[in-house]
Amino acid sequence: MTTSDPGPGPSPAASDDRPGIDDSVQAELNRLRGSIDNIDAAVVHMLAERFKCTQQVGILKAEHQLPPADPSREARQITRLRELAENARLDPAFAEKLLNFIIAEVIRHHETIADGARAEEG
Amino acid sequence: MTTSDPGPGPSPAASDDRPGIDDSVQAELNRLRGSIDNIDAAVVHMLAERFKCTQQVGILKAEHQLPPADPSREARQITRLRELAENARLDPAFAEKLLNFIIAEVIRHHETIADGARAEEG
Repeated sequence: MTTSDPGPGPSPAASDDRPGIDDSVQAELNRLRGSIDNIDAAVVHMLAERFKCTQQVGILKAEHQLPPADPSREARQITRLRELAENARLDPAFAEKLLNFIIAEVIRHHETIADGARAEEG
Repeated sequence: MTTSDPGPGPSPAASDDRPGIDDSVQAELNRLRGSIDNIDAAVVHMLAERFKCTQQVGILKAEHQLPPADPSREARQITRLRELAENARLDPAFAEKLLNFIIAEVIRHHETIADGARAEEG
């Protein structure tokens, strides 16, 4: 898969050789960083897909005059994600903070969409 | 795949029917929210895997007295992720904020590991 590669040049993981670090330690560090970079690329593409969904939700809400935020839905999402995180041995508090961070961005998008809809009507 | 399901009870997407919303709108909202919930579960599991990698990096760094933070690596990660985000039509500024949020958590973990290593030595 080179399609999602940002272009020529060394990857973030590969160009990190520093003097003073044992070769085998550097190789292990590069191996782990290669995996981290792959996971980050996957997460970026997942979130791009997520925002496509939330953008459709935003349009739907704006069209039907539904409020951008939905506290009961968010509470259920947080409970579920904390449980998923716990099962995956990810800190549930971190998962919750992350979801809140993403939801804040989504609500900002929804407000922009709703403002646009109101501007078109007015 | 039911192994990562948090257990019995309705999913966050399914239990959101509210009076006053047209059935077809509610169905569309549920469909989109089902996708969002699936993506969130994938992201949680990706991040669990990412933290497994960064934990190994943290142990390696602590063992070899390398500093927990690595500004040049982080700068390269941010440049790459912004480019990936742009190609995926995700706001690059959001991708950068998100990576910084995750890196801050990782550094916190590395410091904890390094403190543990020092405590064992001392």
